[in-house]
Amino acid sequence: VCWKSEERIEPGSAEKFIKGTLLKLQHLSVIEHAVATVRFVCDRGVSHEMVRHRIASFSQESTRYANYAKAKFDSQITVIEPPGLSGVQRATWIEAMEAAERAYLSLIASGAKPQIARAVLPTCLKTEIVVTANLREWMHIFELRCSPAAHPQIREVMLIARSHLTAVYPELFPSFVVEDVAK
Amino acid sequence: VCWKSEERIEPGSAEKFIKGTLLKLQHLSVIEHAVATVRFVCDRGVSHEMVRHRIASFSQESTRYANYAKAKFDSQITVIEPPGLSGVQRATWIEAMEAAERAYLSLIASGAKPQIARAVLPTCLKTEIVVTANLREWMHIFELRCSPAAHPQIREVMLIARSHLTAVYPELFPSFVVEDVAK
Amino acid sequence: VCWKSEERIEPGSAEKFIKGTLLKLQHLSVIEHAVATVRFVCDRGVSHEMVRHRIASFSQESTRYANYAKAKFDSQITVIEPPGLSGVQRATWIEAMEAAERAYLSLIASGAKPQIARAVLPTCLKTEIVVTANLREWMHIFELRCSPAAHPQIREVMLIARSHLTAVYPELFPSFVVEDVAK
Amino acid sequence: VCWKSEERIEPGSAEKFIKGTLLKLQHLSVIEHAVATVRFVCDRGVSHEMVRHRIASFSQESTRYANYAKAKFDSQITVIEPPGLSGVQRATWIEAMEAAERAYLSLIASGAKPQIARAVLPTCLKTEIVVTANLREWMHIFELRCSPAAHPQIREVMLIARSHLTAVYPELFPSFVVEDVAK
Repeated sequence: VCWKSEERIEPGSAEKFIKGTLLKLQHLSVIEHAVATVRFVCDRGVSHEMVRHRIASFSQESTRYANYAKAKFDSQITVIEPPGLSGVQRATWIEAMEAAERAYLSLIASGAKPQIARAVLPTCLKTEIVVTANLREWMHIFELRCSPAAHPQIREVMLIARSHLTAVYPELFPSFVVEDVAK
Repeated sequence: VCWKSEERIEPGSAEKFIKGTLLKLQHLSVIEHAVATVRFVCDRGVSHEMVRHRIASFSQESTRYANYAKAKFDSQITVIEPPGLSGVQRATWIEAMEAAERAYLSLIASGAKPQIARAVLPTCLKTEIVVTANLREWMHIFELRCSPAAHPQIREVMLIARSHLTAVYPELFPSFVVEDVAK
Repeated sequence: VCWKSEERIEPGSAEKFIKGTLLKLQHLSVIEHAVATVRFVCDRGVSHEMVRHRIASFSQESTRYANYAKAKFDSQITVIEPPGLSGVQRATWIEAMEAAERAYLSLIASGAKPQIARAVLPTCLKTEIVVTANLREWMHIFELRCSPAAHPQIREVMLIARSHLTAVYPELFPSFVVEDVAK
Repeated sequence: VCWKSEERIEPGSAEKFIKGTLLKLQHLSVIEHAVATVRFVCDRGVSHEMVRHRIASFSQESTRYANYAKAKFDSQITVIEPPGLSGVQRATWIEAMEAAERAYLSLIASGAKPQIARAVLPTCLKTEIVVTANLREWMHIFELRCSPAAHPQIREVMLIARSHLTAVYPELFPSFVVEDVAK
């Protein structure tokens, strides 16, 4: 439509058009017409970074309305273990999680609403967040969040998301050798 | 995900959820995860208004790169007639169009690039523009652009777009009686 | 500029123009040219909601780079007490805060980086966030966040912000009687 | 605020902070808190490109409401001459402008509203547009629009805008030698 060159569309022309023209000329607005939706399971420290991306839509598990004392959460609070803890550090972290859970359940039991009791929930509380963004924005998100400078936990989930999008759109999200995720 | 109420999903629950919960509580961020893409044919006065919507993606026929003197445009320039012209006004408009076309073709013939020759092209030049927006943004666009206060020509094309989306998403874009489009 | 009516500018005309024309016709894009910057002190549950506003700019105290074990934080972690706690609830909350602080300091002492140790920090961790938005966006933010449906703690800080902006721009942010903040 | 390093603020520290830290680390969100407003006089081909920048606010002379037949426009229509016309091309362009003006005035005289008569106005119609954007966005706008790949007329006005911002913020908008504007 931009160049009124529709007559040049034929089998296989799209891939060439994307690589040879759009990416080369950085005429990336065309790539915005396709979107991808990803459901992330991460902690709330990570989700707080994610929602800073403006050109995206988010639906997130709400600490105002989700009551983690309820049966559907098995009356227990799911958390995400931070990477690289030593044995002693892990014991410290587990103790802190148990203290936070006890406090939350006690506050709820004594009548506090979830939106008040959430005060004691830790940053590593597990959250679910559904993110929809256009492909140009995903390119930008991955550039920032798959970088070694990113927080290791947002990097971890974004590398997984990128590998899924790479499988679908190899022209846009080239296949990277990701040797250091497991570290 | 927001309320961790996935266990309540069942056949027919989506429509009820949209009407009875999301629209009622104005919890509209959920509706942002679906997008719709519309190709408009309109004039450049109308497209100049369209591209002011920020939460949308656009690909538009370029007056920098499209050469309207070329065979693929039949060596003639397509324009959109404004509504409601009297016979005399229509003759004035046609004469102006012919003068603009003559000037454009003459400039191109004498070596001017399309991006310079476009100076003489009229506001009512036909343009094509592909617009992708999420459904919440389309609700907002239609609210503004289907209003009687909108420019009659953006209203005309937006009413058509809305009727298409109404057919697909009747919960979000209720069916309006549009008695005055033809006027 | 929109109506080329600059010749009608005179002392006192701006207020009339805003109330009698811009607000009345909802021609609010004009109001976007002025911005206001507010520094909030709130908890990270509240800041996680704030940063969802897209048409705004944020600079926030980083849990990746701020080391709360350092002298500049007095080697102690500042938290925000949630509203409406009973005596027993308050004791539960304080105990949880002390457990979280002990765990954080212990993790840092054993060599964890702040960006890992933050896992144990509570949702009610005090954060500072500087928010710049244009006045139209502030109108929208206040509409959502000063509503009784908002979380009580985002509402509390937003009512304060609104009262400051009301003092500067009484036409845009009318003076409300806010009787229920203290509750 | 991000690093809680306020105690390091002293005379002259801001410039060092911007150059040595923010620009170096590309921690550019901080720069978003300052905005600049520029009033451009350009043609409507150029303004149609300008308003594609999403993170900006615009107030533009309206072809719906400005009646160019009125005395305040001296009953004549102002246009912007495209660059690089030869003598013959210039004569063609002037003739086209006169035809467009005659048609517009005739349509208005016969009762057409400005929003209908605008159909015959040329792309090179002079328009005024006030643009407010944050400094990070201006950096981005200048990168795209001051490039030799940009349309020569948007480049021309953007180079002027950039030179003004360079004078105020030399750290952000380094002084370029702009040898080719006049060509």
